[in-house]
Amino acid sequence: MSWFDKSYMAAKGVAKGKAGATHALNEAVQGRYHYVYGPYAEPVLRIKPGDIVVAETQDAFEGKIKTEQDSPAEKLNVPFLNPQCGPVAVEGAEKGDVLAVYIKSILPRGPQPVGTTALIQEFGGLVGTTNTALLNQPLPERVKKMEVSEAGIKFNDRITLPYEPFIGTLGVSPEIEAVTSLQPDYWGGNMDMPDVGPGAILYFPVHHESAYLYLGDCHATQGDGELCGVAVEMPSTTTLQVDLIKNWKIAWPRLENERFIMAIGSSRPMEDAVRIAYRELVHWMVEDYGWDTIEAYFFLTQAGRVRLGNMVDPKYTLGASILKTYLDD
Amino acid sequence: MSWFDKSYMAAKGVAKGKAGATHALNEAVQGRYHYVYGPYAEPVLRIKPGDIVVAETQDAFEGKIKTEQDSPAEKLNVPFLNPQCGPVAVEGAEKGDVLAVYIKSILPRGPQPVGTTALIQEFGGLVGTTNTALLNQPLPERVKKMEVSEAGIKFNDRITLPYEPFIGTLGVSPEIEAVTSLQPDYWGGNMDMPDVGPGAILYFPVHHESAYLYLGDCHATQGDGELCGVAVEMPSTTTLQVDLIKNWKIAWPRLENERFIMAIGSSRPMEDAVRIAYRELVHWMVEDYGWDTIEAYFFLTQAGRVRLGNMVDPKYTLGASILKTYLDD
Amino acid sequence: MSWFDKSYMAAKGVAKGKAGATHALNEAVQGRYHYVYGPYAEPVLRIKPGDIVVAETQDAFEGKIKTEQDSPAEKLNVPFLNPQCGPVAVEGAEKGDVLAVYIKSILPRGPQPVGTTALIQEFGGLVGTTNTALLNQPLPERVKKMEVSEAGIKFNDRITLPYEPFIGTLGVSPEIEAVTSLQPDYWGGNMDMPDVGPGAILYFPVHHESAYLYLGDCHATQGDGELCGVAVEMPSTTTLQVDLIKNWKIAWPRLENERFIMAIGSSRPMEDAVRIAYRELVHWMVEDYGWDTIEAYFFLTQAGRVRLGNMVDPKYTLGASILKTYLDD
Amino acid sequence: MSWFDKSYMAAKGVAKGKAGATHALNEAVQGRYHYVYGPYAEPVLRIKPGDIVVAETQDAFEGKIKTEQDSPAEKLNVPFLNPQCGPVAVEGAEKGDVLAVYIKSILPRGPQPVGTTALIQEFGGLVGTTNTALLNQPLPERVKKMEVSEAGIKFNDRITLPYEPFIGTLGVSPEIEAVTSLQPDYWGGNMDMPDVGPGAILYFPVHHESAYLYLGDCHATQGDGELCGVAVEMPSTTTLQVDLIKNWKIAWPRLENERFIMAIGSSRPMEDAVRIAYRELVHWMVEDYGWDTIEAYFFLTQAGRVRLGNMVDPKYTLGASILKTYLDD
Repeated sequence: MSWFDKSYMAAKGVAKGKAGATHALNEAVQGRYHYVYGPYAEPVLRIKPGDIVVAETQDAFEGKIKTEQDSPAEKLNVPFLNPQCGPVAVEGAEKGDVLAVYIKSILPRGPQPVGTTALIQEFGGLVGTTNTALLNQPLPERVKKMEVSEAGIKFNDRITLPYEPFIGTLGVSPEIEAVTSLQPDYWGGNMDMPDVGPGAILYFPVHHESAYLYLGDCHATQGDGELCGVAVEMPSTTTLQVDLIKNWKIAWPRLENERFIMAIGSSRPMEDAVRIAYRELVHWMVEDYGWDTIEAYFFLTQAGRVRLGNMVDPKYTLGASILKTYLDD
Repeated sequence: MSWFDKSYMAAKGVAKGKAGATHALNEAVQGRYHYVYGPYAEPVLRIKPGDIVVAETQDAFEGKIKTEQDSPAEKLNVPFLNPQCGPVAVEGAEKGDVLAVYIKSILPRGPQPVGTTALIQEFGGLVGTTNTALLNQPLPERVKKMEVSEAGIKFNDRITLPYEPFIGTLGVSPEIEAVTSLQPDYWGGNMDMPDVGPGAILYFPVHHESAYLYLGDCHATQGDGELCGVAVEMPSTTTLQVDLIKNWKIAWPRLENERFIMAIGSSRPMEDAVRIAYRELVHWMVEDYGWDTIEAYFFLTQAGRVRLGNMVDPKYTLGASILKTYLDD
Repeated sequence: MSWFDKSYMAAKGVAKGKAGATHALNEAVQGRYHYVYGPYAEPVLRIKPGDIVVAETQDAFEGKIKTEQDSPAEKLNVPFLNPQCGPVAVEGAEKGDVLAVYIKSILPRGPQPVGTTALIQEFGGLVGTTNTALLNQPLPERVKKMEVSEAGIKFNDRITLPYEPFIGTLGVSPEIEAVTSLQPDYWGGNMDMPDVGPGAILYFPVHHESAYLYLGDCHATQGDGELCGVAVEMPSTTTLQVDLIKNWKIAWPRLENERFIMAIGSSRPMEDAVRIAYRELVHWMVEDYGWDTIEAYFFLTQAGRVRLGNMVDPKYTLGASILKTYLDD
Repeated sequence: MSWFDKSYMAAKGVAKGKAGATHALNEAVQGRYHYVYGPYAEPVLRIKPGDIVVAETQDAFEGKIKTEQDSPAEKLNVPFLNPQCGPVAVEGAEKGDVLAVYIKSILPRGPQPVGTTALIQEFGGLVGTTNTALLNQPLPERVKKMEVSEAGIKFNDRITLPYEPFIGTLGVSPEIEAVTSLQPDYWGGNMDMPDVGPGAILYFPVHHESAYLYLGDCHATQGDGELCGVAVEMPSTTTLQVDLIKNWKIAWPRLENERFIMAIGSSRPMEDAVRIAYRELVHWMVEDYGWDTIEAYFFLTQAGRVRLGNMVDPKYTLGASILKTYLDD
């Protein structure tokens, strides 16, 4: 019995983790991409629990930054950033349910150089921004293009980074809000968390009927924090298997893979994001594994792990995790 | 020549600060109130620059907390909080313009006790919250009702506070987002800034065609920070005069009254909100009053004033101001 | 009966607010100034409760920035900044007591131009700093000299600011720490709070035998936040009356003047400083004025006032206050 | 040639990484332990670069919490917490140098159960604290004792955690400050960073003549963030090899082990600690490895790693690291 067969998705999902029909969500099906996570768009696809979606995502710049000579300020048109596939309506999903999303694969798409990183003015972890509003002069714009394949990312002539792709922006619709796809929050969104890659199952609290799944912003790799604000952005072909879980209450996105379970928080300042993540993980251990609250608090003090997703988006994202070996009897 | 005649609204407004037609935005005209600031709702009113709107606002709880025995947790239905009048479409307003809103009066409305404050679980400035997520037990719920009239607010048998009303939530629609009316941001929203009262003119950057003005959440008075999260909430009859300014670029809400000009920032952590406010004020002094940037920075160091609006909402709000006497030649 | 006669200092002080002997703490008596608040220096003066100290403070740069052509980076020698008079040993003061300091006057001292403000690299509220560590280029250095007298501060040819002096750095020694005089904390220190001026009484928790009072860093005036990090710095002659209060527990500095009582918190991020200040004020209302905790929390929500002292020092300082009229029966 | 032979310590150290004399710093030699990092204590040992120190550290509670029935509030005497060995004077160390500390081993010491964790009121990552000052009731006190050996830490009957010891508090004296050993900062101190374990070399900027090395607060293991504020605290026998590096400028602690180099920042809010760490790492790559600043910024965006040390101390500590494989040609 594989870890997947014992996952929450397989154990509690309406489809029991079994794969259903496969749906192409290519550029033609998608049509116009979306820039908010919200309930006001028409679904581009209607699927059943268990179904598989093969999505053609655009890069975070919608492909507009084509060369290292392009100026992001000229090419980009705020707030039309970080285009998303979706919404995908999931049959039977209701407020209070949990949407499970198993990431099967993420492949680079389109002509080389597929990967883009860039300095965008007043954006990034080591510069003054529109939030941390300062009088210093911004850094000059700069674009870097990189060849990306499953064999690796050619950062420069000397360094090839391993291909460790993940989905930067993934989640469901809020109930009545429609929020920029640049922002991560309790519904997921732009978490930029490297663990959201192939082999992971994500769990999102459903707030709107049919859940309305969105995704986009795949990264070929990324360091902790997405320091300059722009990872190795790439268009992708991403394959997801979706399921629906009834009678499971979660407040924030959760993640499960072969090795660990993780709760993901997004907030500012950064300590609040960690507090959210760790508290949600305490609740998880108490509710689903039978721990005493204080014992869980003590245990995470000794064995918890924290991953910094982003330190650049409207909210910072961190995940708190614990190895499954400590949870299984 | 009064200060109003020299205001930005009178000097630059399409209507030159002259009053136009008066529109009733009573409960019947409003119909369903709104819980997001966004472009997806149909305007309830279409007005011209200069027109006056007389709005019947609800209190932040939509009147559901009727007695001191009511439980906020039972009566309130997240996210349907902080109901707003609007959107009011303003003819000719386009992205890049500025909407000017002159607050003429705010009167309490409805049967006594008109005023409500309350402890709501996991909400407030001196408790753990859904953001500052902790394991401490929440404080018990509590509701306090107060008689409110223009003569004062009866806090208890001994203390009557002066009636110093203002609009807690006021602003325009983002371009493509629809964001909870609990949140303040660059479009205004739930700033909870006590200076937003009668005699003040607010300026908002327009992001969506026709601006889409929203308002609600009037307070009979409030301390700096709105400490427990709930001011003296009241339904009101609020009268606004609206104008439109072309060719003036602002990034965040601005305020002008007889004595000072203020820029208002909203962010987390709190220092970022002050930075936004002060930087916007520096820009204002440079662009409209001819100051050198560093001299303005030096001058605000010696003479700037900061007011804390809220320390409880999804973003904290602070205003940075400077007396007009220092700006006029 | 004046407000002073009803003050905590007069009501609870060992000297009952009565003035005792006067001590000159001029440059000769002081000798070497100090750059830390701590217990490791020898007292320069030993006084009794009730005694008056007339101190000659240096400006925050120890007078080294003499002209607008001086380079702060060249003239200043970190960490030898913000020189302090003291420590003054107060007879009978023990850990757990409260030191009361009544500010009688602050006069500018020395040749004109007495006042100095400056841009110091990687320091200030609207620039990247050694804490908010960024890659942006720092702003260029700049010095501004101003004539200062009791008649006003000549900011430029057009603007004379009122003379509103206060003590930027004032407090007592920690028990075993010796902390840079640039930092504000629970013992006082570099709070840069404009209310700490003539007519105010400050209360500090005593942590070390004889209290060890320090002071320095007087400002001719200052805006809220001390935005660029440097107020109108000046050398001064400052007159204090000191008293000692037994059996009164306070955790953070408190202030009293004719109109209000204030609790002062220092921390980062800024919201924590406000929380400290407001919580300490709640405790004060409960312990000394008989309020119920939640009623105090409700009342400050409606009538509390917050002043931003500094947003530039190692910890930010804010004060939360309430009018005395609401506290007296 | 081992990684150690190529380390900064071996390459640049006065002793070239060669071991010198061994000094016992047992309880008798230490005498009274210290509670501040500062220059005001007499050295307990004087060593030469290359010398080895074998220190008997106490646990963070100085052994006062002996059973699970002990009350931390009763046993602990603030500010006499987190006792430190030292100061150790290092011959020839001057302000501007770098002290290198190679951690050779950390062994548990004393009778079982050696390990202690606890809930201390108003302290910890998921509770209101003296900084995040709230009105919620504190969690009740609780103590947990654990047997610790090199074979593991017996958390409970089911779980034995691996023994992964490190030094919680390690560093040098500030120049004129003496700061509580509870605080981490640019001189090291209470960083609570799990990478500071056997096999790591730490580099600290020297600020005071003879450097004045302090250490204490060893942990048998710890999760990221030291969530409840108290790791598996234990008394230890810790062996260090010390060296001195001239002509190398660093602003914050740095760490090197076989696999990576790390810069460590401590500040509040948490994002400032990450900014410090990442900027210091950018500077390191530029100065010692010849990277262009923006290329380093881009590269860390894709390949940097962040570790959360503590989220509970007066400043939060995070380390930013990069694999050595990417830096070597």
